[in-house]
Amino acid sequence: MMKAKVHVMLKEGVLDPQGEAVKHALGSLGFSGVENVRQGKVIELDLADGTTEDTITEMCEKLLANTVIESYRIEIAS
Amino acid sequence: MMKAKVHVMLKEGVLDPQGEAVKHALGSLGFSGVENVRQGKVIELDLADGTTEDTITEMCEKLLANTVIESYRIEIAS
Repeated sequence: MMKAKVHVMLKEGVLDPQGEAVKHALGSLGFSGVENVRQGKVIELDLADGTTEDTITEMCEKLLANTVIESYRIEIAS
Repeated sequence: MMKAKVHVMLKEGVLDPQGEAVKHALGSLGFSGVENVRQGKVIELDLADGTTEDTITEMCEKLLANTVIESYRIEIAS
């Protein structure tokens, strides 16, 4: 078995309502100095040995990331 | 300004319905060899200089992670 991680974040310039909500909540909890918050996903995959990065890329393009508004980065555990 | 990242994942043993849904969806898209999927959050914070790790830990304990079912890891960009 091999492990891979896919980090998915909203692209620069795309409004991040989740991040805005967290930022305001931190402020109301009394945390000062929080200038910006962006929230993304990390997906940990346990895959059969020999799964290629191309296959993982295809998983991202088809399902794991909405490539219109999100960018993704694949990390394969050695 | 300083940058920090908080990685939040469900604790081992906690059911991950989101991960299960992704796993089944990948299967129905024809991807074989997907043995397990777990999904978490990554929160990128832009903070005022001098914000301490203790303060970020407090943010996690109070808001960013549900410490009953989630574990978190703080990464401070040097």
